[in-house]
Amino acid sequence: MAIVRPTLLLNEERARRNIAGMAAKARHHGLFFRPHFKTHQSAEIGEWFREQGVSAITVSSVAMARYFAENGWRDITVAFPVNIREIDAINALAETISLSLLVESEETVEYLDRHLHSRVDLWIKIDVGYHRTGISWDQPDRAVALVKRIARMKKARWQGLLTHAGHAYHAACPAEVLNIHRESLERMTAVKRAISDAGFPAVKISVGDTPTCSLADDFGGVDEIRPGNFVFYDVMQQQIGSCREGDIAVALAAPVVALHPERWQAVVHGGAVHLSKESLRDADGQTLYGKVARLTEDGWSRAIPGARVTSLSQEHGLISLPADELAGLKVGDLLAILPVHSCLTANLMKRYRTLSGRHISCLRE
Amino acid sequence: MAIVRPTLLLNEERARRNIAGMAAKARHHGLFFRPHFKTHQSAEIGEWFREQGVSAITVSSVAMARYFAENGWRDITVAFPVNIREIDAINALAETISLSLLVESEETVEYLDRHLHSRVDLWIKIDVGYHRTGISWDQPDRAVALVKRIARMKKARWQGLLTHAGHAYHAACPAEVLNIHRESLERMTAVKRAISDAGFPAVKISVGDTPTCSLADDFGGVDEIRPGNFVFYDVMQQQIGSCREGDIAVALAAPVVALHPERWQAVVHGGAVHLSKESLRDADGQTLYGKVARLTEDGWSRAIPGARVTSLSQEHGLISLPADELAGLKVGDLLAILPVHSCLTANLMKRYRTLSGRHISCLRE
Repeated sequence: MAIVRPTLLLNEERARRNIAGMAAKARHHGLFFRPHFKTHQSAEIGEWFREQGVSAITVSSVAMARYFAENGWRDITVAFPVNIREIDAINALAETISLSLLVESEETVEYLDRHLHSRVDLWIKIDVGYHRTGISWDQPDRAVALVKRIARMKKARWQGLLTHAGHAYHAACPAEVLNIHRESLERMTAVKRAISDAGFPAVKISVGDTPTCSLADDFGGVDEIRPGNFVFYDVMQQQIGSCREGDIAVALAAPVVALHPERWQAVVHGGAVHLSKESLRDADGQTLYGKVARLTEDGWSRAIPGARVTSLSQEHGLISLPADELAGLKVGDLLAILPVHSCLTANLMKRYRTLSGRHISCLRE
Repeated sequence: MAIVRPTLLLNEERARRNIAGMAAKARHHGLFFRPHFKTHQSAEIGEWFREQGVSAITVSSVAMARYFAENGWRDITVAFPVNIREIDAINALAETISLSLLVESEETVEYLDRHLHSRVDLWIKIDVGYHRTGISWDQPDRAVALVKRIARMKKARWQGLLTHAGHAYHAACPAEVLNIHRESLERMTAVKRAISDAGFPAVKISVGDTPTCSLADDFGGVDEIRPGNFVFYDVMQQQIGSCREGDIAVALAAPVVALHPERWQAVVHGGAVHLSKESLRDADGQTLYGKVARLTEDGWSRAIPGARVTSLSQEHGLISLPADELAGLKVGDLLAILPVHSCLTANLMKRYRTLSGRHISCLRE
């Protein structure tokens, strides 16, 4: 079955290897593995996790939780601060599965206490330095107050402290990731100690970014990990050092529609509506929207040195290529683009094609 | 009907006014109006154009052409270099509607000549300085050669020269847009003259970016315009000067999920999967992913001075707000985000909600 349009290729073997590797690492360190499914958003790929013993998952929206609940998942954490407007959907979901939610404010806890009809578990979100959401680690009194308030709730049980060290994604190298990880664990431990000192000793700690979970070998004090991106990895993770290029499990097959040898460029059908506008600076300070490889009999080649996606508009991708590579290209050929951020690319494409030509579908809201 | 999740609001009155205004401008200048439908991608919104006398449209993919053909449009230009892998879909479509395609290379023309079963019209794409696709305006001999080759095709008729002065989107002010427009028309005219001198006098000229079509008042030599974004406009167009803020017809309603007064921030459910990662630099050199307004009884307010979306992750939006605005906000409130690039936001949301609460659907591939 020929590829005619921009198509997201999935190397199933690599994805399964990434899953098995992270599951084994969690087992080795005695960690509960609750992978984040926001990257793949696919019931079928979810089954590959189940085969590795996974029984509990993380998602980033109530809609995603509902989709995976409909596909047989019975223990789901929505790792996003509760949107209280979704209370009806939350109550409906909590009737059928074991649902965990994230809170960081008294207002949200008050609201939940008044409106929850079904039992849920709550995690308190702690900010260890990313400064996106959560109670700041250096304000443990606020965390203690929230724990006390949750203890008085009728329909909720407190589970522990959860963080996402998203600043690890901005790390320039593995050593920096590990420093952030060490600092995060110290900060989580400090909050845990304050809560323990206040008379609440059974505090679980959940952490969860792909760089840390890929690179760290010390998870002292951690109970649960929630990485997501590692199932596919991408150019951003490769640049951080969380993975090798050979671990990247998705690539966009994009048809060449024009060639401009005078400026060493090929134009492909494959734009912002396929890849997303996520970009990176490479080692030379140049912006790239993806690396570029050749399609091969059994997948795609190593990235072509010196080739990159230099810009994207809605449907167009502009690719810079070395002259000799360009000379071998014809209109109608396919190029494979390794995405900068596989989560956003998968979310846009909503469908995968395995290397054997099988289609795998995703959640469509 | 309450808004519970990130929802793309559409001010129908503004969109209809934008459509009527551009249709009137085209009539006034004696231009054929072939609006680009890639921005809204909606059959229902397409009808609002039909009410303004529009009978022919532009799209950016064969899939989009098929969708609008199924919804009663009989004259469609796919303003994207032909992807020869889609020849079967092209032939099927060309059997039922009047289909126009873009070419810029002999290879593509050769391929079409061998594989077209149905009649199509062809436009030659000219690059007037954007350097994305097209034959460079200063190589008119290549355009002449392509015209001659098309003249020998069995199933295709040559229509004229088409350009997209996409560099107008990078203009800092209206005067710069007008300079680009003037230069573009001179360059198109030069190519037209060369083709005319070679014995092909009946050359149509089609141009089409929203900044130019919004701002210019001289379309000397132009036969057809193809703007698209103007139906909704957005913060990028406002920054260029193509529209006023009061012309922007879409805004993302995003629920507030956390408040961080210590850093003057609110966190909303509304991230890269809703808005896209398109960003701009404002006058102070700060990156923004959207402007921020309050929801009102009848839509949304003027943008809040000093407020902006400062970063986006997959589902989270971080919003900086002045202290007094922040003080009035509660978890569960809604904020309205004016998108930087409405085409990409609409493509992600796939659905609109009018201010009266009616849902309008889009193409879903």
